[in-house]
Amino acid sequence: MKVILAEKYGFCAGVRNAISIAEKVLAEKGKVYSLGPIIHNPDVVERLAEKGLVAVDAVEQVPEGAAVLIRSHGAASDEIDNLREKNAEIVDATCILVKRVQQIAVQMEKDGYKVVIVGDRNHPEVRAVVGCTKGAVVVGDESDISKIGTGRLGIVCQTTQSPEFFSNMLSAISKTDFNEIKVINTLCKEAIKRQQAAVELCRKVDIMFVLGGLQSANTRKLAELCKKCNNKTFHLQNRDEFDRKTVFGCRTAGVTAGASTPQHIIDEFVRHLESIDAGEM
Amino acid sequence: MKVILAEKYGFCAGVRNAISIAEKVLAEKGKVYSLGPIIHNPDVVERLAEKGLVAVDAVEQVPEGAAVLIRSHGAASDEIDNLREKNAEIVDATCILVKRVQQIAVQMEKDGYKVVIVGDRNHPEVRAVVGCTKGAVVVGDESDISKIGTGRLGIVCQTTQSPEFFSNMLSAISKTDFNEIKVINTLCKEAIKRQQAAVELCRKVDIMFVLGGLQSANTRKLAELCKKCNNKTFHLQNRDEFDRKTVFGCRTAGVTAGASTPQHIIDEFVRHLESIDAGEM
Repeated sequence: MKVILAEKYGFCAGVRNAISIAEKVLAEKGKVYSLGPIIHNPDVVERLAEKGLVAVDAVEQVPEGAAVLIRSHGAASDEIDNLREKNAEIVDATCILVKRVQQIAVQMEKDGYKVVIVGDRNHPEVRAVVGCTKGAVVVGDESDISKIGTGRLGIVCQTTQSPEFFSNMLSAISKTDFNEIKVINTLCKEAIKRQQAAVELCRKVDIMFVLGGLQSANTRKLAELCKKCNNKTFHLQNRDEFDRKTVFGCRTAGVTAGASTPQHIIDEFVRHLESIDAGEM
Repeated sequence: MKVILAEKYGFCAGVRNAISIAEKVLAEKGKVYSLGPIIHNPDVVERLAEKGLVAVDAVEQVPEGAAVLIRSHGAASDEIDNLREKNAEIVDATCILVKRVQQIAVQMEKDGYKVVIVGDRNHPEVRAVVGCTKGAVVVGDESDISKIGTGRLGIVCQTTQSPEFFSNMLSAISKTDFNEIKVINTLCKEAIKRQQAAVELCRKVDIMFVLGGLQSANTRKLAELCKKCNNKTFHLQNRDEFDRKTVFGCRTAGVTAGASTPQHIIDEFVRHLESIDAGEM
């Protein structure tokens, strides 16, 4: 069948940087810990695990004096403090855009704003931003807005959300009896380009595939946006999850991939799709 | 017929203050100029004109050295400068909330923000705020948003707009590719209370009357909001504009009034309505 790739897809600079840092430090040290998976792609995590990267859930699991990688989503201030107390050798692979969200949130709090983070409260990026502040509030949907209060609000957004979602939450917040709102647009422009390219493509094809980790926020957002425009949208981690029955009756397939999805997984998937003869099904 | 007054209506502190300043300076000087009508109520303006207040359209019409009242809606910086050049004796009756909008706009511009004023570009309050800045942009509806650009936006609102309108414009602005938005809520809380009371009342009555100058922004906003909930809403300046036919078949009438509508006009109107016997019509 005919396969069309989105105009923008796959690895972003932040992910590329995190992997490159991980590979470098693993080559030096042999064994390195990371607080949670370094990026939300099990294939990459597995490959790095083979080279000695050990993902742990909490600082308590890190041995005294070990080398520890701060993953692309960042870490909370108290986690960093706890690692320092353990004399850990900290290697920071936080995406610079995520770091910027943390810095803006901290500065806003210093400037007297009540910090509001628009995003998914369970995502590690959001948890880390919250953890860098004294009392940030997460707005994941309109029901959270009553928790904000009416003072001076300093608002940022999880980098991988869509402009539409951010705007909807801002609109709802602006309906409150606020005194002042300061919003810094912390959305990742690369993520937005991928979203736009994915939506554009999914409108033209019979079936749409979004490749990437099922926990990956930016990949999930791609799938969510595509699903709104093309009901036959499937979010798969890799070729192994592909079910041939799904493409029955389809002549053209669109493919995009999250920012943490490695190129070889995309290539393999595309080759496989292309090899399917619609006439044979 | 039964007449119910809105819980909040009529003169606000800003209007009361402007009239009191005008009366005081007129008693001293005998003849005083104002740049445009001091408030948007022809009845009040006429009464003050009898005492010596002369409303002019532009600074050019003010004689050298005359006493000049800056009306409740404020004046632009260049108008003040031109008056000073004419050695005018300036008496400032600008509403403190309007003055605050001007000060915030000027400060935002100093802080590097592109100033955006949400409101009616033809209203003197908005024109004065624009005139206090170097390059403020007015957003009166969504079609204006393309003019804003994508930099750091500092947003204020005409004091007499409704929270709903302000929020709708903020929502539309937040859909742009902005970098930073700082919003200071400059809506007048008294005007909002009058809006809420008017909307609440108009839902309970057969017919709703909004009394006040036809140019008065806050009165027009009251009428606009009531019209959405009660189709039989009439914006009248005073009893002279009342048409008895409009109340035909109505048992209860609601009455509210803008912030610049004097109490005697409201009292007179209410007495007249009450004297109408629904059975006689």
